[in-house]
Amino acid sequence: MAAVKSVKGYAAHDSSGTLTPFNFSRRTTGTKDVVFKVKYCGICHSDLHQIRNEWKGSVYPMVPGHEIVGVVTEVGSEVSKFNVGDHVGVGCMVMSCGACSFCKKQNEQHCSSVIWTYNSIDLDGTCTYGGYSDLMVANEKFVVRIPENLPLEGAAPLLCAGITVYSPMSHFKMTEPGKHLGVVGLGGLGHMAVKFGKAFGLKVTVISTSPNKREEALKNLRADAFLISKDMDAIKGAAHSMDYIIDTVSAPHDLDRLMTLLAPDGRLVLVGVPPEPFEIKPFSLIAGRRSVSGSNIGGIQETQEMLDFCGQKNITSTIEKISVDYLNIAMDRLSKADVKYRFVVDLETIERA
Amino acid sequence: MAAVKSVKGYAAHDSSGTLTPFNFSRRTTGTKDVVFKVKYCGICHSDLHQIRNEWKGSVYPMVPGHEIVGVVTEVGSEVSKFNVGDHVGVGCMVMSCGACSFCKKQNEQHCSSVIWTYNSIDLDGTCTYGGYSDLMVANEKFVVRIPENLPLEGAAPLLCAGITVYSPMSHFKMTEPGKHLGVVGLGGLGHMAVKFGKAFGLKVTVISTSPNKREEALKNLRADAFLISKDMDAIKGAAHSMDYIIDTVSAPHDLDRLMTLLAPDGRLVLVGVPPEPFEIKPFSLIAGRRSVSGSNIGGIQETQEMLDFCGQKNITSTIEKISVDYLNIAMDRLSKADVKYRFVVDLETIERA
Repeated sequence: MAAVKSVKGYAAHDSSGTLTPFNFSRRTTGTKDVVFKVKYCGICHSDLHQIRNEWKGSVYPMVPGHEIVGVVTEVGSEVSKFNVGDHVGVGCMVMSCGACSFCKKQNEQHCSSVIWTYNSIDLDGTCTYGGYSDLMVANEKFVVRIPENLPLEGAAPLLCAGITVYSPMSHFKMTEPGKHLGVVGLGGLGHMAVKFGKAFGLKVTVISTSPNKREEALKNLRADAFLISKDMDAIKGAAHSMDYIIDTVSAPHDLDRLMTLLAPDGRLVLVGVPPEPFEIKPFSLIAGRRSVSGSNIGGIQETQEMLDFCGQKNITSTIEKISVDYLNIAMDRLSKADVKYRFVVDLETIERA
Repeated sequence: MAAVKSVKGYAAHDSSGTLTPFNFSRRTTGTKDVVFKVKYCGICHSDLHQIRNEWKGSVYPMVPGHEIVGVVTEVGSEVSKFNVGDHVGVGCMVMSCGACSFCKKQNEQHCSSVIWTYNSIDLDGTCTYGGYSDLMVANEKFVVRIPENLPLEGAAPLLCAGITVYSPMSHFKMTEPGKHLGVVGLGGLGHMAVKFGKAFGLKVTVISTSPNKREEALKNLRADAFLISKDMDAIKGAAHSMDYIIDTVSAPHDLDRLMTLLAPDGRLVLVGVPPEPFEIKPFSLIAGRRSVSGSNIGGIQETQEMLDFCGQKNITSTIEKISVDYLNIAMDRLSKADVKYRFVVDLETIERA
């Protein structure tokens, strides 16, 4: 039996969230396990919440990271989908029950026994550790293939930011060419929604509180229009014009105002998590059979489908690559939304840390 | 050219809403018009709102009523769908543009040029008058066929109360046998939702504030379960158990509490119109990809589909039949929700009024 694996990582040790070097071990390679050298890991805003225990339930030491990509170094004896050298990734989940109605429909993210990639209790009773580390081990069911033509660093954020907006677009069929998509908020999630929207052939309008994002939205991300959410004349001018809205904003904001932008049968999907309940007028839903839905990441099969789509369309996240010694500064900048659009940590730099 | 038609009806003349006999005329029979003797008209809660100008925009004299059924007495030269003697009905709409994207998809209820059955301006510039009257004229496109096996008085409320709950159940596919439907509020709409739910083979739970509706729900309407919405233990016991919820309540109530009853991928459809905005926690939607939607009546083709379904399943509304001289008392009782479950006025009684 092979030995447990020594892994170098970065961990938070208390709710200050400060990340420092942390050596730990991962399990011996199981028959269905894929082992891969982690090349890059995206930094999700939820990593920041969790290292600071802002959602409660944080267990320390915590190795965050659930946008993990790398190259396979070893596969278990019963692994059929992957070979050494393959480009692979692990997102937010590493296991689920496999037997419930949600797992059977490939919606593992709704399984009540889902095991998250970090800060979760694994099948062997140990705490899971995420991708701010140089080696990953996961059951092949929760490993996805990264198309060879995609740069790994830009692909990493697809595993959470990407699937979080792709999943509702696919599930709720917000993909009909020529239809009009509103994207609320232009951060890690929002910029991916714009890219997917354009790839699906939608008309895309970015809705933001920041006038200074106009040029970025229209020129760099090729959005078709830009709307300031506090400009009531602009909001009225766009009334009933949008078929779909993806709302990525986690700060408190006026959802009912956004509803006025929706055409009949329109749907707004909330993927950000504002801290307070939101208010909607009944008439905003009833007139025109409008819907508000929520969505949280996506299933594994859907994640692979998204990655294949990204491979075909050459879609990756726009990133800022950092070394491990920049992690704490990155977290501080992330807390101020100072990033275009996703920090991705280069785990090759861990050797030198 | 035939003469205009003399019609006997009941109208409100000011915002007191008091209904008194009112003689008026309807247009000469157009080539595509169906003329029918009105036998019965259901009394919808919106009639009460409108005669009292509670939604503003009421024009007097107002002849309310949009659950109108009767027997064809004359058809225009180009009418192809109906013959003299047919059982027919008219619901909430009598015309739409026919050309917009909504009309083309048989969602005339979303057409911005829709002409409502009463208190609306008709194509000829006159105000439309509803079904509290003994004769109706309407374009055949907005006339539906009542299955011969259904008693006309019980069929009348299908044209608004019925389609209002059937349409979202059909459109949002809340019809899969064995799935669990929650029906919030047991009035004119709610009791129809229970009947449709049982006919679709669903498990139906009635959710009500009134313990005294338990026996009615379980015994007379054959619901499978009954839940008091303020009994937090019962609410917790039913958490995540319902696939669909139809919320028919127009009084202010806690929607977020109802959301906790929904299973992942569950949907709550609002068909009542509470006066104030409702509050929902973002997490109530995001966890489990839940949705809240609104819905308002339904299209004409869908209304015919519902009537045919009711014919097959022998579904009608449970009603209290009244004569025209009882109209004002009925309105007073309706304002106190004192009816099981729909007043239907017998227009034969208008001759004696």
